[in-house]
Amino acid sequence: MTPPTATPPSSLGRPLSGWRLRVYTVIFEADTRAGRRFDLTLMVMVMVSVALVVLESVTGLRERYGAWFAALEYFFTAAFTLEYVLRLACVQRPLRYALSFYGIVDLLAVLPTYLAILEPSLYALVDVRALRLLRVFRILKLNAYMQETISLGRALRASGRKIMVFLSVVLTVVLIMGTVMYVVEGPSHGFTSIPVSVYWAISTLTTVGFGDITPKTDLGRAIASLMMLLGWGILAVPTGIVTSELSAQRFQFPAKITTRSCQACLSEGHQPDSDFCRHCGARLPPYLRD
Amino acid sequence: MTPPTATPPSSLGRPLSGWRLRVYTVIFEADTRAGRRFDLTLMVMVMVSVALVVLESVTGLRERYGAWFAALEYFFTAAFTLEYVLRLACVQRPLRYALSFYGIVDLLAVLPTYLAILEPSLYALVDVRALRLLRVFRILKLNAYMQETISLGRALRASGRKIMVFLSVVLTVVLIMGTVMYVVEGPSHGFTSIPVSVYWAISTLTTVGFGDITPKTDLGRAIASLMMLLGWGILAVPTGIVTSELSAQRFQFPAKITTRSCQACLSEGHQPDSDFCRHCGARLPPYLRD
Amino acid sequence: MTPPTATPPSSLGRPLSGWRLRVYTVIFEADTRAGRRFDLTLMVMVMVSVALVVLESVTGLRERYGAWFAALEYFFTAAFTLEYVLRLACVQRPLRYALSFYGIVDLLAVLPTYLAILEPSLYALVDVRALRLLRVFRILKLNAYMQETISLGRALRASGRKIMVFLSVVLTVVLIMGTVMYVVEGPSHGFTSIPVSVYWAISTLTTVGFGDITPKTDLGRAIASLMMLLGWGILAVPTGIVTSELSAQRFQFPAKITTRSCQACLSEGHQPDSDFCRHCGARLPPYLRD
Amino acid sequence: MTPPTATPPSSLGRPLSGWRLRVYTVIFEADTRAGRRFDLTLMVMVMVSVALVVLESVTGLRERYGAWFAALEYFFTAAFTLEYVLRLACVQRPLRYALSFYGIVDLLAVLPTYLAILEPSLYALVDVRALRLLRVFRILKLNAYMQETISLGRALRASGRKIMVFLSVVLTVVLIMGTVMYVVEGPSHGFTSIPVSVYWAISTLTTVGFGDITPKTDLGRAIASLMMLLGWGILAVPTGIVTSELSAQRFQFPAKITTRSCQACLSEGHQPDSDFCRHCGARLPPYLRD
Repeated sequence: MTPPTATPPSSLGRPLSGWRLRVYTVIFEADTRAGRRFDLTLMVMVMVSVALVVLESVTGLRERYGAWFAALEYFFTAAFTLEYVLRLACVQRPLRYALSFYGIVDLLAVLPTYLAILEPSLYALVDVRALRLLRVFRILKLNAYMQETISLGRALRASGRKIMVFLSVVLTVVLIMGTVMYVVEGPSHGFTSIPVSVYWAISTLTTVGFGDITPKTDLGRAIASLMMLLGWGILAVPTGIVTSELSAQRFQFPAKITTRSCQACLSEGHQPDSDFCRHCGARLPPYLRD
Repeated sequence: MTPPTATPPSSLGRPLSGWRLRVYTVIFEADTRAGRRFDLTLMVMVMVSVALVVLESVTGLRERYGAWFAALEYFFTAAFTLEYVLRLACVQRPLRYALSFYGIVDLLAVLPTYLAILEPSLYALVDVRALRLLRVFRILKLNAYMQETISLGRALRASGRKIMVFLSVVLTVVLIMGTVMYVVEGPSHGFTSIPVSVYWAISTLTTVGFGDITPKTDLGRAIASLMMLLGWGILAVPTGIVTSELSAQRFQFPAKITTRSCQACLSEGHQPDSDFCRHCGARLPPYLRD
Repeated sequence: MTPPTATPPSSLGRPLSGWRLRVYTVIFEADTRAGRRFDLTLMVMVMVSVALVVLESVTGLRERYGAWFAALEYFFTAAFTLEYVLRLACVQRPLRYALSFYGIVDLLAVLPTYLAILEPSLYALVDVRALRLLRVFRILKLNAYMQETISLGRALRASGRKIMVFLSVVLTVVLIMGTVMYVVEGPSHGFTSIPVSVYWAISTLTTVGFGDITPKTDLGRAIASLMMLLGWGILAVPTGIVTSELSAQRFQFPAKITTRSCQACLSEGHQPDSDFCRHCGARLPPYLRD
Repeated sequence: MTPPTATPPSSLGRPLSGWRLRVYTVIFEADTRAGRRFDLTLMVMVMVSVALVVLESVTGLRERYGAWFAALEYFFTAAFTLEYVLRLACVQRPLRYALSFYGIVDLLAVLPTYLAILEPSLYALVDVRALRLLRVFRILKLNAYMQETISLGRALRASGRKIMVFLSVVLTVVLIMGTVMYVVEGPSHGFTSIPVSVYWAISTLTTVGFGDITPKTDLGRAIASLMMLLGWGILAVPTGIVTSELSAQRFQFPAKITTRSCQACLSEGHQPDSDFCRHCGARLPPYLRD
């Protein structure tokens, strides 16, 4: 057997060898042709199996093709289970893989079918398999996203605390507003408990407005109006302010740089209304444009 | 016959001549008076015919004026068909026109009337003719938009991949959430199949909230609350962060207007990094601040 | 009688004099104490009369206090009519005032009461009087807004064409989508005519989602899902892109300027990772911060 | 007894001493271990008591555990009342604390339970106690927010007037639109009074769209369409303009990253106005572009 040439991750103990290395290269990596074909086949199988579960839920189709759906699902589950076992077998630390994000996703891809043997109504959860489609980024070599995703990831973490604060305030508001509506409207008007009233408050603040529960009293409608203006205003007010800030800046101090150049020091980017170069003091030629 | 003076598109084979060139100039171009009148007449005809179809759909009006509507529509369809045939006739590569965006739009403008002869319920699709109104930009000489539209087009293409990723994530979320709600609520509560549940999930995430299907169980309402907060939060969180970022920058280090003054001409509002006054050329004192 | 000291608008013909000038100063201007008191009284009267009309619409209150409401409304209408006549009388060009924005608003403030004598159901339109409250900005000396409002006005006009284009595209989309749904769903499912279907399309695209009309067929629900994603996406996609652009710029090329200074040329605002001054080339001292 | 070492707020009269100082340090401050433990215990008690009230509102749970809920609530109310009394006792100016924001919040935390003795339906308002969770920021030492919150606070105050103007315009619009719909649709279609119609107008403008009240007439639906486009457009138009502005600036004159390279160290990404390489100090060649 040829000695392994690929460098396995250094965090694993014994170096991979032989068939384990070959399987690892095909399943986990996508730089070889076999690896890419494997990933592509995997994506197609995931999408087909998810589509089957979706179609199976439509009563008319289930009555006509139910047996086919079942048979195909057994096939897919068997294939994915085999793949999962192979993954566990060809890494050095199986537990490390099993507890990683992708490891859990891969487990959730096969688990519902087995659970459905015990509890048939859970069969549809096979759709959770769709999470496996997150792997598609690797196949399409969307490495360009790595840079932006890392930047975005860092930006999100930096903003993570602000998001937490914002969400905490929102949850406190819907809890208190939901409680107030529960007291004001009461179970006879649909607000049967505080959790239900909070559900209504969320549907109102987020401007979803299902309408399955609606206030009937004048005070209730007034409070609802406040919540609607708040939820929409949280979107509208900053949007309007940001726009007017940008507009104001543009018209007070146009920061849109032009290509106007100073003939003395060759500096560019002077404003349309400048008369002198701000770097060297020389007089600028008139600004011509059409 | 006068020799052709207009330069036809170089991608076409034989140069246009004679009546074909004249018709081409009138129909496809809008720099001559005849061309502009043609376009204007075309727009008016399109709008009138679309309005007729809209009115014809109102039962009361159809019963009273049905014959008129039919007659006028035959007239319009005949006119537009004649125009389409002329277009095909006066270009060098008819197939190239027929497969272009405007070519397909022009075909869809006449096709529904003919299809309606076979399948009368499709009559209303004559409204698709309204797409022809996209030509209006040319009539109004909205060339100013060319520059911005090209910039916007480039920006969109650059962002096109991000949009695809974003949409893919959204579709995966509504698929999985819809499936979960189908399992949790079940057909007895309105979630009759996974496609219907996905339709509900989309209406919730996009904060539309029709209310034709609503969760009845506590767990279902809790999941619905999460989706509502997610769909609204995707709008509210970035808006709030962008605003606070802009505010923070303005108050930490105003990169725009300062109160820096020129001692010679007493003008205010110079940039932090300017060395010379851009109005009078005098050297600016150093920018001091705390 | 004291000679007029205020300078009337130059666009008027004969200079104002005497009682006309005094009335003009009080009614139209707000720099004298009488002028300000007049405006304040006017605002209060407008708000009270609007509140009365609002209360009068509540059946319970109308039955109990109907006579009082009517009497007070006659009083207010008489007062506002007298004020309107005075305004016409004390300006030099009455027609110019009558056709101005405020002139029309003032006329609409009294007209509904008279129209209601002919057509009683129009009585509630007295509320249009509330437009007079736009004058409140002058009372509160909100001149600070003049600058921003003018900037915002210029920004809006500059953007006016873009807004028109955007709205035209939106209207075309809802027209075509509404028509398609009319064909797909049909009057039996609530889509009784094209105007009604367009009303539904607008309620879906703008994520309002009343739910009075909802698609029942699978194809209809699929089209509705597309429209919902489009309407919400128009808000979510730019918001997300703007945020990720700002984040990306911040982390690739941090534009958040620091107070780091060059010891040689004393220039400030160097980036945290700079080693040399970008203005004079001298080596920068290490960046210390906590 | 050890002399007081902490410096009490200078605005209070007699300096704190003895047990009062110790209690003050534990209750009001969080720099000692006892102080932090106290705050943590307080948070937990607040959250548990709020959760109890939420659960108690669910009919099934109330029937089974009603006695337990009542007993625990008496315990919590007693504990919080004792804490409130201690707070009043250990500050120098009790009235100043009682009228402060936190003082009022702390009072509202115990008041509903006592009010519920008189009026049992108010019991659920105990949830208002959740406002006490605003103290959590201090426990988690979220001082980092102080800087941003102060900036944000200043930004909000600066924008406060714009927000007031914006809200005033929105309220005027919904009042007038609500009135118009009341006249057009009338009580027979659900618009039973002007306040109810204003409630509907708010639900439409803010794109919530409950659907409990919907227009039935053609004119009413047309007006509703206008309002929906307005409410959604206020969000969509600025978002789109902001995005296209940013895109336009980036593609006309990228003010951020360029491909400008240093010939000495080959580093890329220098700013357009840099003269020296910020990494190695070498002079940069002039920035040429078209």
